[in-house]
Amino acid sequence: MDEFSFIQSIKQDTYRQPSLLKGVGDDAAVFRQSSEDVVIAVDTFVEHVHFSKETMKPFHIGHRVLAANISDIAAMGGRPAFYLVSIVIPKHSTTIERNELFAGMRSLSDRYKMDLIGGDTVSGQEMSISVTVIGYVPQKKARYRSDAREDDIVFVTGTLGDSQAGFHILNNPGKYSDAFYYIDKHRMPIPQVEFAQQLEVIDRVALNDISDGIGNEASEIAEASNVSLYLYEEKLPTSESYKQFPLELQEKWKLFGGEDFELVGTVSKDNWDLVQDTAKEIGIHVTEIGYVSHYRNNHVYLHKDNQLVPLKKDGYNHFK
Amino acid sequence: MDEFSFIQSIKQDTYRQPSLLKGVGDDAAVFRQSSEDVVIAVDTFVEHVHFSKETMKPFHIGHRVLAANISDIAAMGGRPAFYLVSIVIPKHSTTIERNELFAGMRSLSDRYKMDLIGGDTVSGQEMSISVTVIGYVPQKKARYRSDAREDDIVFVTGTLGDSQAGFHILNNPGKYSDAFYYIDKHRMPIPQVEFAQQLEVIDRVALNDISDGIGNEASEIAEASNVSLYLYEEKLPTSESYKQFPLELQEKWKLFGGEDFELVGTVSKDNWDLVQDTAKEIGIHVTEIGYVSHYRNNHVYLHKDNQLVPLKKDGYNHFK
Repeated sequence: MDEFSFIQSIKQDTYRQPSLLKGVGDDAAVFRQSSEDVVIAVDTFVEHVHFSKETMKPFHIGHRVLAANISDIAAMGGRPAFYLVSIVIPKHSTTIERNELFAGMRSLSDRYKMDLIGGDTVSGQEMSISVTVIGYVPQKKARYRSDAREDDIVFVTGTLGDSQAGFHILNNPGKYSDAFYYIDKHRMPIPQVEFAQQLEVIDRVALNDISDGIGNEASEIAEASNVSLYLYEEKLPTSESYKQFPLELQEKWKLFGGEDFELVGTVSKDNWDLVQDTAKEIGIHVTEIGYVSHYRNNHVYLHKDNQLVPLKKDGYNHFK
Repeated sequence: MDEFSFIQSIKQDTYRQPSLLKGVGDDAAVFRQSSEDVVIAVDTFVEHVHFSKETMKPFHIGHRVLAANISDIAAMGGRPAFYLVSIVIPKHSTTIERNELFAGMRSLSDRYKMDLIGGDTVSGQEMSISVTVIGYVPQKKARYRSDAREDDIVFVTGTLGDSQAGFHILNNPGKYSDAFYYIDKHRMPIPQVEFAQQLEVIDRVALNDISDGIGNEASEIAEASNVSLYLYEEKLPTSESYKQFPLELQEKWKLFGGEDFELVGTVSKDNWDLVQDTAKEIGIHVTEIGYVSHYRNNHVYLHKDNQLVPLKKDGYNHFK
């Protein structure tokens, strides 16, 4: 099958985004959006670096690479609208694998009524998937990392470390409590789109998604906003059965374990109630985990065992 | 160097597109464009499939992958505005190679005042480059393949087969006329952005860029428009010294040789003068090469040696 036919074959039957003028099938896709701003992000995932067929089926891989990109749109306060997919596929891969991979993307894109509007497939030695996601955000409501201010409350959605715990379970078979829950959080993460969108009523929120561990993501907010973030170790939210894992791993995963795709943010104390109400309404957890200060700018500090320790940017870094 | 710092290091110092609100440095880029439509395309290039370090330096590779994407925007009648780059780089690659690759992109992007607004770099075994290009096009002036109509004139810009001739020269060292010209057309193609944009005054033009050979691209117009395209073999434009190559290769390259990044299009006879004047003004060649008919729909036919032969879709197809 040639590349043109393949993208044709996996695209949705009908487009759902009213702003779309032309989807798959020309030199480029075309859309028109005048009332909102456009947000766009791209991410590439490589086999053996970002995922492995030992722990994920093609359906999971498809789901997760799209989830990671949608999470970037969520972290801007946007709603995802379109995606384009460029895949390098080894010659030995089967049609079933390719179809499963796209099925994983499609099932997640259905949740947000996103349209696949372009892409290509190329043969190569090593599988890699590059996804471009386009979303819309109301004017002046894009959520920048640079918007943290002195005395803000630092919060995080959901629980931390679950994805790494799931990865651990997959690689170390045995008896675990809630094994499927953790595995699901690893393979099929759901980005926090609805929550971030509902914060629209608030004037200023700094947001970042946790793809490389909260240590790293909090650092990015600190640097971009020229402030410091002070977090309380004991306030970092984890799942109930998370204590079953070795203490050292618990700490490592919740601080530096990537791919939870939760959101870390800061907001003024005045708006904290509103953030909590929003989370309640949607049915997710949001936890106050620290505060913003100008004291020792551009860093993240952890209150731990009555000590204050600098939190290093030790999130997973692919390119060393 | 981590991936964040690398994209930071190679991005332009100042952004040039007035519609850009946020470039590199957050979860996603943000732009606002209300008066024009947005066009977007993505393409991935893999070493040994699309390019080889034996015939191209990193600078050329950077130039050509961006040129290929810009060409898609040109084929929509758009003007390129932004690009995002995702690169999988083997661990053994040097900083110099990476910088050269981006220098090649930057020098071309400068021509159009394009801004690099995002991307990432990931380690892998095999080099691949995925580029997303975003452009703007005046409302109702996007140039679709489906806009060819009965009795239209079929035209093509520039000359055909030059890129393949350059590739041939690089792989078969020897004495050639205009060797540097052909090599340049292969390594450093310039997409026909200005020409396509200037056609804006014309209501209806069908356009397609020649990335996979005119046989293939003309077929796409025929199928999308539900018409047939009839081309004259002796009218297909080639460079003056093109005759130096073996006859068989001449024919193969001009019909099926990809990556010339010229434009093939159709336009009503009434507007043909306007198309010619536009080309003259810009200083490029445009040649009438055939006509559109409803006779035997959805195919391309070649008038050759007083015979009419169906032109197969034998453009290079990466995914078989």
